[in-house]
Amino acid sequence: MDFEYKMVIITRKDLNLSPGKLSAQVAHAAVACTLQTKKKNPKWFNKWHIEGGKKVILTAESLDDFFPLKKKAERLDIVSIIIEDAGHTEIPQGTKTVLGIGPAPTNLIDQITSDLPLL
Amino acid sequence: MDFEYKMVIITRKDLNLSPGKLSAQVAHAAVACTLQTKKKNPKWFNKWHIEGGKKVILTAESLDDFFPLKKKAERLDIVSIIIEDAGHTEIPQGTKTVLGIGPAPTNLIDQITSDLPLL
Repeated sequence: MDFEYKMVIITRKDLNLSPGKLSAQVAHAAVACTLQTKKKNPKWFNKWHIEGGKKVILTAESLDDFFPLKKKAERLDIVSIIIEDAGHTEIPQGTKTVLGIGPAPTNLIDQITSDLPLL
Repeated sequence: MDFEYKMVIITRKDLNLSPGKLSAQVAHAAVACTLQTKKKNPKWFNKWHIEGGKKVILTAESLDDFFPLKKKAERLDIVSIIIEDAGHTEIPQGTKTVLGIGPAPTNLIDQITSDLPLL
């Protein structure tokens, strides 16, 4: 099946997070992007949700890669949220861990992140 | 800070998922539980969300552990959702991968999952 809508969540290779920490950060981004898109662009949210809510996890080398991606998403009016870790384990509090983008039409998201490899 | 509300997501040790696959499954559960609780119990959803949306990732040995946990959640009127994988990689389509519970008051969630180790 081809999905017309998706969300992507971009992780940082340089942080080397444990699977538990990593999945919690990805979940934070997914929930935050879902709720913000539901409010800001209910049409996109509904179409994505009805299709099954596709989520793709990608990976970037480091935090520096997040900012140009976020800027591109903003120019396309797509929700983009950087998650800061609130915890006290593994990494310093306030570390920017993941970037969530979408949900939005697949062809728009691909204009932003098609160069990034899957995690 | 003590959180009065949390969501837990329980993963399966026996599936040995890759970090990318695992975080996508955890994100599916987090989003599904968020949206269902927002609709069914907006008070709990709001309190959890305002507190920062705590999510804890736990681990169980296998699928058999999911069902008694889900039953306990249902008895306490807490949202609980088992995610089935829709993909075609790593594991057969339809595999039950993770169980999301909550968000709900921490003391209720702890009645269900306090025996499970963190992932």
